[in-house]
Amino acid sequence: MNSDSLKQLLEQVAAGSLEPEQAMQRLKKLPYEDLGFARVDHHRVLRRGFPEVIFGQGKTPEQITAISRALHAQGAAVLVTRVDRAKAETVLSEYPELAYHPDCACLSQLAAEPPRPGKGTVVVIAAGTSDLPVAQEAVLTAELMGSKVETVYDVGVSGLHRLASAAEVLMQASAYVVVAGMEGALPSVVAGLVDKPVVAVPTSVGYGTSFGGLAALLGMLNSCAPGLSVVNIDNGFGGGYLAGLIDHLG
Amino acid sequence: MNSDSLKQLLEQVAAGSLEPEQAMQRLKKLPYEDLGFARVDHHRVLRRGFPEVIFGQGKTPEQITAISRALHAQGAAVLVTRVDRAKAETVLSEYPELAYHPDCACLSQLAAEPPRPGKGTVVVIAAGTSDLPVAQEAVLTAELMGSKVETVYDVGVSGLHRLASAAEVLMQASAYVVVAGMEGALPSVVAGLVDKPVVAVPTSVGYGTSFGGLAALLGMLNSCAPGLSVVNIDNGFGGGYLAGLIDHLG
Amino acid sequence: MNSDSLKQLLEQVAAGSLEPEQAMQRLKKLPYEDLGFARVDHHRVLRRGFPEVIFGQGKTPEQITAISRALHAQGAAVLVTRVDRAKAETVLSEYPELAYHPDCACLSQLAAEPPRPGKGTVVVIAAGTSDLPVAQEAVLTAELMGSKVETVYDVGVSGLHRLASAAEVLMQASAYVVVAGMEGALPSVVAGLVDKPVVAVPTSVGYGTSFGGLAALLGMLNSCAPGLSVVNIDNGFGGGYLAGLIDHLG
Amino acid sequence: MNSDSLKQLLEQVAAGSLEPEQAMQRLKKLPYEDLGFARVDHHRVLRRGFPEVIFGQGKTPEQITAISRALHAQGAAVLVTRVDRAKAETVLSEYPELAYHPDCACLSQLAAEPPRPGKGTVVVIAAGTSDLPVAQEAVLTAELMGSKVETVYDVGVSGLHRLASAAEVLMQASAYVVVAGMEGALPSVVAGLVDKPVVAVPTSVGYGTSFGGLAALLGMLNSCAPGLSVVNIDNGFGGGYLAGLIDHLG
Amino acid sequence: MNSDSLKQLLEQVAAGSLEPEQAMQRLKKLPYEDLGFARVDHHRVLRRGFPEVIFGQGKTPEQITAISRALHAQGAAVLVTRVDRAKAETVLSEYPELAYHPDCACLSQLAAEPPRPGKGTVVVIAAGTSDLPVAQEAVLTAELMGSKVETVYDVGVSGLHRLASAAEVLMQASAYVVVAGMEGALPSVVAGLVDKPVVAVPTSVGYGTSFGGLAALLGMLNSCAPGLSVVNIDNGFGGGYLAGLIDHLG
Amino acid sequence: MNSDSLKQLLEQVAAGSLEPEQAMQRLKKLPYEDLGFARVDHHRVLRRGFPEVIFGQGKTPEQITAISRALHAQGAAVLVTRVDRAKAETVLSEYPELAYHPDCACLSQLAAEPPRPGKGTVVVIAAGTSDLPVAQEAVLTAELMGSKVETVYDVGVSGLHRLASAAEVLMQASAYVVVAGMEGALPSVVAGLVDKPVVAVPTSVGYGTSFGGLAALLGMLNSCAPGLSVVNIDNGFGGGYLAGLIDHLG
Amino acid sequence: MNSDSLKQLLEQVAAGSLEPEQAMQRLKKLPYEDLGFARVDHHRVLRRGFPEVIFGQGKTPEQITAISRALHAQGAAVLVTRVDRAKAETVLSEYPELAYHPDCACLSQLAAEPPRPGKGTVVVIAAGTSDLPVAQEAVLTAELMGSKVETVYDVGVSGLHRLASAAEVLMQASAYVVVAGMEGALPSVVAGLVDKPVVAVPTSVGYGTSFGGLAALLGMLNSCAPGLSVVNIDNGFGGGYLAGLIDHLG
Amino acid sequence: MNSDSLKQLLEQVAAGSLEPEQAMQRLKKLPYEDLGFARVDHHRVLRRGFPEVIFGQGKTPEQITAISRALHAQGAAVLVTRVDRAKAETVLSEYPELAYHPDCACLSQLAAEPPRPGKGTVVVIAAGTSDLPVAQEAVLTAELMGSKVETVYDVGVSGLHRLASAAEVLMQASAYVVVAGMEGALPSVVAGLVDKPVVAVPTSVGYGTSFGGLAALLGMLNSCAPGLSVVNIDNGFGGGYLAGLIDHLG
Repeated sequence: MNSDSLKQLLEQVAAGSLEPEQAMQRLKKLPYEDLGFARVDHHRVLRRGFPEVIFGQGKTPEQITAISRALHAQGAAVLVTRVDRAKAETVLSEYPELAYHPDCACLSQLAAEPPRPGKGTVVVIAAGTSDLPVAQEAVLTAELMGSKVETVYDVGVSGLHRLASAAEVLMQASAYVVVAGMEGALPSVVAGLVDKPVVAVPTSVGYGTSFGGLAALLGMLNSCAPGLSVVNIDNGFGGGYLAGLIDHLG
Repeated sequence: MNSDSLKQLLEQVAAGSLEPEQAMQRLKKLPYEDLGFARVDHHRVLRRGFPEVIFGQGKTPEQITAISRALHAQGAAVLVTRVDRAKAETVLSEYPELAYHPDCACLSQLAAEPPRPGKGTVVVIAAGTSDLPVAQEAVLTAELMGSKVETVYDVGVSGLHRLASAAEVLMQASAYVVVAGMEGALPSVVAGLVDKPVVAVPTSVGYGTSFGGLAALLGMLNSCAPGLSVVNIDNGFGGGYLAGLIDHLG
Repeated sequence: MNSDSLKQLLEQVAAGSLEPEQAMQRLKKLPYEDLGFARVDHHRVLRRGFPEVIFGQGKTPEQITAISRALHAQGAAVLVTRVDRAKAETVLSEYPELAYHPDCACLSQLAAEPPRPGKGTVVVIAAGTSDLPVAQEAVLTAELMGSKVETVYDVGVSGLHRLASAAEVLMQASAYVVVAGMEGALPSVVAGLVDKPVVAVPTSVGYGTSFGGLAALLGMLNSCAPGLSVVNIDNGFGGGYLAGLIDHLG
Repeated sequence: MNSDSLKQLLEQVAAGSLEPEQAMQRLKKLPYEDLGFARVDHHRVLRRGFPEVIFGQGKTPEQITAISRALHAQGAAVLVTRVDRAKAETVLSEYPELAYHPDCACLSQLAAEPPRPGKGTVVVIAAGTSDLPVAQEAVLTAELMGSKVETVYDVGVSGLHRLASAAEVLMQASAYVVVAGMEGALPSVVAGLVDKPVVAVPTSVGYGTSFGGLAALLGMLNSCAPGLSVVNIDNGFGGGYLAGLIDHLG
Repeated sequence: MNSDSLKQLLEQVAAGSLEPEQAMQRLKKLPYEDLGFARVDHHRVLRRGFPEVIFGQGKTPEQITAISRALHAQGAAVLVTRVDRAKAETVLSEYPELAYHPDCACLSQLAAEPPRPGKGTVVVIAAGTSDLPVAQEAVLTAELMGSKVETVYDVGVSGLHRLASAAEVLMQASAYVVVAGMEGALPSVVAGLVDKPVVAVPTSVGYGTSFGGLAALLGMLNSCAPGLSVVNIDNGFGGGYLAGLIDHLG
Repeated sequence: MNSDSLKQLLEQVAAGSLEPEQAMQRLKKLPYEDLGFARVDHHRVLRRGFPEVIFGQGKTPEQITAISRALHAQGAAVLVTRVDRAKAETVLSEYPELAYHPDCACLSQLAAEPPRPGKGTVVVIAAGTSDLPVAQEAVLTAELMGSKVETVYDVGVSGLHRLASAAEVLMQASAYVVVAGMEGALPSVVAGLVDKPVVAVPTSVGYGTSFGGLAALLGMLNSCAPGLSVVNIDNGFGGGYLAGLIDHLG
Repeated sequence: MNSDSLKQLLEQVAAGSLEPEQAMQRLKKLPYEDLGFARVDHHRVLRRGFPEVIFGQGKTPEQITAISRALHAQGAAVLVTRVDRAKAETVLSEYPELAYHPDCACLSQLAAEPPRPGKGTVVVIAAGTSDLPVAQEAVLTAELMGSKVETVYDVGVSGLHRLASAAEVLMQASAYVVVAGMEGALPSVVAGLVDKPVVAVPTSVGYGTSFGGLAALLGMLNSCAPGLSVVNIDNGFGGGYLAGLIDHLG
Repeated sequence: MNSDSLKQLLEQVAAGSLEPEQAMQRLKKLPYEDLGFARVDHHRVLRRGFPEVIFGQGKTPEQITAISRALHAQGAAVLVTRVDRAKAETVLSEYPELAYHPDCACLSQLAAEPPRPGKGTVVVIAAGTSDLPVAQEAVLTAELMGSKVETVYDVGVSGLHRLASAAEVLMQASAYVVVAGMEGALPSVVAGLVDKPVVAVPTSVGYGTSFGGLAALLGMLNSCAPGLSVVNIDNGFGGGYLAGLIDHLG
C-alpha cells in the first residue's frame, strides 16, 4: 500500500465508485492497519484502569509528577515503584492525590473509574520477611487492577504449616504470586499443591552464592512442577500484574 | 500432636466425651492434615485428565511403557517428551495406544475421559522454523488438556506482518505461548500488543552469544512489557501446560 | 483419606467397633500423618536446645527482639547473625539477656536447659585473619549446641606448620569446620590429613578473580579429597551447625 | 610419629643401638613426620579398608587394573567410577576379582579384611530415575565402607508421599545422601524434616537453565535448612563416602 | 483512530466535504500507517538486491530450496549459511542456479538485477587460518551486495607486517571487517590505525578460556579504539552485511 | 613512507645530498614507517578535528586540564566523559574554554578549525529516560565531529508510535545510534525498519537479571536484523563516534 | 636442613655431644623438616630479604604494625598493600621506619641487610594512567627485592610509539611486567616483540563488559604470544614479585 | 637492528659500497625496522631454534606439512600440537622428518642447529594421570628449546610425599611447570615450597563444577603464594615455553 494506491482508493470513494464501508474494510486489511487489534487492546487496558507502572528509581520528582498526571488523565491507575521516602514526600507536596506505601516504596493512585473486580482471589505468598517489599508491590499492583488479594507471609522450610493453616484462603485463589529469595524452592512447593497458575518472583534476598537472586531464579525455572512461570528478579509489579490479568479473565 | 495426644483424643471419642464430628474438626486443624487441600487438588487434576509429563530422554522404552500405563490407569492423559523415533517405535510395539508426534518428538495418549474443553483459544506463536519442535510440544500439551489451539508460526523481525494478518485469531486468545530463540524479543512485542497472559518459552536456537538460550531467556525476563512470564529454555510442555491451565480457569 | 473416611473412622471408635489404639495405628499410616517423624524430630531439636538462626541483616531491632523472645520461649537457643554494633545495642537495651559477640557480629542466648554435651571436639580452622568473623560464627554456633570447640587460626600456605603443631588438638576432633577465602585450598589439605568429616566454608575474602568467594567455593567443590562437603559462602552458622550435629551423633 | 617415638629414636642413636645413617633413613621414610597425626590417620583409613576411589574415565584398562591391584594389596577396598561396560569387560578379563555394577558404571572390590560395620543406617534418597546412577554410586561407596544402606528413590514434587511412607526407614538414619538434579529442592525438604546430617549431591540431570547441574548446586548451597552440605555435581562417591564416614563415628 | 472515525473520514470523502488528497494526508499521520517509511525502506532493500540470509543449519534441503526460490522471486539475492556439503548437493540437484562455496559452507545466488556497485572497497581481515570460514562468509555477503572486496588474511601477532605490506589496499577501504578468535586483539589494532568504520567479528576459534568466542567478544567490546563495533560470534554474514551497507552509503 | 620515498631517501644518501646521520634521524622519527598508511591516517584524524576522548573517571582535575590542553593544541576537538559537576567546576576554573554538559556529565571543546560537516543526519534514539545520559554522550560526540544530530527519545514498547511520528526525521538518517537497557530490543526493531547502519549501545539500566547491561548486550548481539552492530555497555561516545564516522564517509 | 646437616645432627647425638632432648627440640623447630628442600628455600628467601606481603585491606593499624615488626625482625623486607592514607598515618605514628607510597597505597621497609642486586632490569609497562597504582605496586615490590626497575607508562593503542622510543630500555630487560585493563591487549603486543618472560597483570580498570577486569584477564590468557603468563586482577605485588624472582635467577 | 647497524648501512650507501636499491631491499626485509629491538629479538629466537607452535586442530595435513617445512627452513624448531594419530600418519607420510608423540598428540622436529642448552632444569609436575598429555606437551616444548627436563607425576593430595621424595630433583630447578585440573591446588602448594618461578597450567580435567578447567584456573589465580603465574587452560605449550625461556636467561 503506497501513497498512490491509497490516493486511488480515496478517489474511488470521492467518485462514489466505492462505498465508505467497503473502503474501510479494505483499509483494515492493509499492512500496519493490520495491527489494529493492538490499538483496540490498548484502549481496553485504559478503559479498565489497569495501572501503568513508572520505574521511579533514577527519575526526578518532577518527572514522576508529570508522568503520573499524564497517565491518570488518560484514565489509567498510576503505580510508581522504587521511590524512597524523601523523593516521595517531594512528589506528594506537588501531587497530593498519590498515596505512598512505605512497605514497598511505591506511590499509587486509583483510576478515576473504579476498576472492574476480578473473578476470584489473588493469593500472594512470601517466603521470608525480607521478601515483603517485593510481595507488597505485587499486592498493590493486583489491588489497583481490581483484584481481591490475600497474603500468606513468612512461609519458609520451618513455616510450611502456615501454608496448611491457610488452606481455605488458598483454595479460593484464581492465581498465586509466590515470592522467594535464597534457593527459591517455595514456588515449586506451592505449584505441587495447587492447580491454578503460579507466578514465581525471585528476590535478591540472600548472600554468597545467591548471586543477587540468580540462584532463586534458576531454582524456579528448573522446577519440575508444571503450572509455574517466572518474572524478573525483584519484579513484584510484574508478578502482581500477571496474576491480576489472570484474575480478570473469563 | 504426638502419639500420646492422638491416642488421648481417640479415647475421648471412645468414651463419648468427644463427638466424632468435633474430633474430626480438631484432627483437620493438625499439622500436615492441614495440607488436605493439596490432595484434593491433586485429585482434581487427575479427574480432569490433565497430562502428566514424562521426560523421555534417558529413560528406557520399558520404563516409558510402564510409567505411561500407570498414569493412564490413574485417569491422566499421558505425554512423553524427548523420544527419538527409534525409541518411540520400540515403545509403540509394546504399547500401540500411544501416538507418536515426530514434529516434537513426543508420545501421547488422551485420558479415558475426554478432557473438559477450555474457555477460549490458546495461541502458540513461534519466531522461526527452528523453534517449531518446542512450539509443537506446547500445542500438543494444551490440546491434551482440552484447549483449542491456534498457531502463528515464522514471525521474526521480517515477519511481523504475519502477526497482523492473524489479528482475528489473536483477538480470541485466552492465553499466548510465544516461543523464540536468538534475542528472544518476540514475546515482548506480543505482550505489548495484547491484554491476555503471555507465556514466553526461550529456545536454545541460535549461535555464538545465544549461549544455548540464555540470551533469549534474559531478554524475556527483562522485558518491560507487563503480563509476560517465562518458563525454562526449550520447555514447550511447561508453556503449553500453563496456557492450558489459564484457558480452563473460571 | 478424605473427610468422609476420617469421620467414619472416628464414628467406629465412638461406636466401640474400633479400639482407640487400633484407630491410632491406622491414622499413623495415613498420608501426611506419615510425616509424623518430622514433627517428632523437630521436637527433638527443640528439646536439645539447638539454636534457631535469625538472619539479622535487614531486620529491625524490634523484629529481632520479638523473634528471639519467641524462640527462647520454645526452648531453643537463640543465634542472630549479621548484627552490627549499633543495632545490637538497641536490641540489648530491650532484651539484655542476649550476649553480643563483636568478633562475628552475632547475638546469642543459651537455651534455658543446658545443651546436651557433644561426643568429641569440633575443630574450627581458618586460613587468614580476614576469615575470622566467619570462623567465629561457626564457633559460637557449635558451642550453643553444646559442643566443645577448639580453634586453629591463621593457617595459610606459609602457616601449615601451625596445623602440625596443633596435632594433638586435631586428633581429638569429631568434625572439622575449615574456613578459607582466596583459592580455598585449605579444606582440601585438611581433608587429606584427617579421617573425620570436614565441612568447608568458603569466604568472600579475596580480590580480583575471587569473585566474592566463587573461586574458593569451586576449589572446595572440586577437591579430590574425600570426606569434604561445602556450605554457602560466608555461612559460618551452617558450618558450625553441621559440625555440631555430627558431634552429637551416636 | 609423635614426640615420644621421635625421642625414642634419638635415644637409640644416643645409646648407640641405632646408627646415625640408619636413623636418617628412617626419618626420611616418614613423609609426614612433622604432621605426625596425618600419617597415623592415613594408616587408620587403610586398616579400616575404606575405599580409595579411582576416576575411571580417561584411564586405560591397564592403568585401572594396576592401580586397583596396588590399592587392594595395601588393604584398601577398591572403587573405580565411570567405567563403561566395554572397558569394564577388558579389566575383568585381567582382574576377575573386581565386580562390575552397571547401574552406576563402577567396578569394586571389598578390602581383604571385612570393614568395620557402621553405627546406624545411611539413607540414600534420589529425586528421579535419571538420578539413580549417581545415587547408586553413593550406595556402593557406603556399603564398601561397611555401612548398612537403605534407599528411597523417585521422590519428586509429585512423590513426596514416598518420603512419608518410608518414615520408619528414615528414622533410623545416621546420615542422609540426597541426590537431585533440576532445581535441586529435595535436600532442602529432607533437611527441614530430619535432624541428622544431610549430604546433598546435585546431578547434571535437567535441561535448559539447569546448566549441567549448576541450578541444582546453587539451590542446595542457598538452602535455608541447617544441617545440609553439598558435594560436587554428580559426585555420588563423595556423598556416599562422607555419609559412611559419619556413620562410622563414635 | 477506531473503526468509527475511519468510517467517518471516508464518509466525508464520499460526501465531498474532504478532498482525497487531504484524507490521504490525514491517514498518513495515523498510528501504524506512520510506520510507512519502513515499508518503503524494505522495498528499497529488495530493489537493490541486498541478500536475505537463510540460516541453513537445522533446515531441510526442501525448506532451503523453497525459501531460496521465494526470496529470489522477490528480487533479492540469496545467501544460505551453514550448509554442509551433503545438504548442499541435495539442494543443488533441485535448484542448480545456486552456487556452493565450500570455504564458508554457503549457498548463494545473485539477484536477477545486478547489484548497485559500492563506493569503495570492503577490506576483510582475518587473524588466523581457522578464522577463514567466517571471513569468507563476510566476503561473500558483501560481494552479493555489489561491493568490491579485498582480503588480508593470517594477520596475527607474528604477522602484523602483512598489514603493513597491504597498506595500499587498506588505504582504499570504505569499511573493514576484522575477524579474530582467541584474545580478539586484531580489531583494536586495526581500528587504531585506520579512520573508517571497523566491524569486528569474534570467532569461536580458541580453547580453554576462550569460552567459545567469549574472550574475543569481550576483548573487542572493551577496545579503547573508537570507530569499532561488534557483531555476534562467528557472524560473518552480519559483519559483511554491515560493511556492505556502509560501502553503499552516500 | 612508501617504497618510493624510502628509495629516494637512500638515493639522496648515495648522492651525498643527505648525510647518513641526517638520514638516520629522519628514519627514526617515522615511528610507524613500515605501517606507513597508519601515520597518515592519524594525521588525517587530527586535521578533521575529530574528538579524542578522555575517560574522566579516576582522573584528577589537573590531569584532565593538562590532557585537554595538549589535545586541543594538536588540533583535536576535546571530549571528557564521566566528569561529575564538582570535578567539572574545578576544571573549568582552570580551563574555562571547556563547556560542561550536565545531561551526560561531559566536558567538551570544539577543535580550533570547525569540523567538516557530515553528509546526512545522525539519528540518536533512546528507549527510556534513564538511557538519556548515554544517548546525550553520543549526541555530543557526533556534533563535535561536525554531524547534524536529531534525537528520538522515550521509545519503549508503549512508545513505538514515537518512532512512527518521527518518520520524516528517520528517513534522512545516514546512521542510527540506538540506546537501550533492560532487554535491549529496540535496536532490533529499528534495524528491522531502516536500511542504514544501526549502532546499538546497551546501557546498564535495569534490575535483577539485567546484570548491569548484560541482558541488553546479549539481546543486541543476537538480533536477527542485519545492519546492526554493538559497542560496549554505556559507551555513548563509542556509538556517537562510529555514527559520526559513517556520516562523514564518501 | 639437607641430608648432610641431618646426618651431622644425628652423629652429634651418637657422639654424645648433643642430648636427645636437645636434638628433638632442634628437629621440632624445623617446620618442614621432612620436606627438607622447602625449609632451605624459605631460609634462602629470608636471607635475600625478599618481601613478605601483608594485604592491608581489612586489617587494623595495630595488626599491620605488629606483623610488619615481626617480619622485619626475621630479616624480611616488608610490604603492606592497600593501605589508605588515614590508616597509613596511624601506622606511621607507631612505626615511623615504614615508608608510605601514596601512588600505590603501600607501606614498605627494606630488609636490614640490603637485598642482593638482580641480574638485569625489570621493565614495568602500563597501558593507561588508571593502571598506575597497580603498576607502582609492582615497581615497589621488585625494588624491595633488589631489582633495578624501569617504567614505560601510558602505552595504549595510540601510544605504541612510546614502546618504540623506549627500545633501548626494553632491550636490557630480564623480565617484563605489563599492566592493562580494558581489553588487556598490551601484554600480547609486548610478548610478540620481546624474548624475555612477560608477566601480565590485568586491572579492574574499565566499564561495562570489562566486568571488573575479567575481559582483560581473558584477553591475556588467550594471547597467542608465547612467553606470557598471568596473575590475578590488580595483583601488582604478584607481578612484581615474579619478575623480581626471574631477575634474580642464575 | 640497532642504531649502530642502521647508521653503518647508511654509511655504506653514502660510501657507495651499497646500492640504494640493495639497501632498500635489506631494509624491507626487516619487518619491524621501526621497532628495532623487536626485530633483533625475533632473529635471536630463530637463531636459538626456539620452537614455533602450530595449533594442529582444524588444520589439514597439507597445511601442517607446508607450515612446518617453512618454519624449519627458517631455522626454527617445529612443534605441532593437537594432532590425532590418523592425521599425524598422513603428515608423516609426506614429511617423515617429523616425530610423533602420542602421549601429547604432538609432532615435532628439532631445529637444524642444536638448541643452546638451558642453565638449570625445568621441572614439570602433574597432579594426576589425566593431566599427563598437557604435561608432556610442556616437556616436549622445553626440550625442543634445549632445556633439561625432569618430571614428577601423579602428585595429588594423597601423593604429596612424591614431592618430598623428589626433593633433590626439585632443588635443581630453574623453573617449574605445575599442571593440575580439579581444584588446581597443586601449584599453590609447590609455590609455597620453592623459590623459583612456578608456571601453573590448569587443565580441563574434572567434572561437575570444574567447568572445563575454570575452577582450576580460578584456584591458581587466587593463590596466595607469590612467584606463581598462570597460562590458559590445557596450554602445555605455553607453560613449557615460558619455563624454557626462564631456563635460558642469564
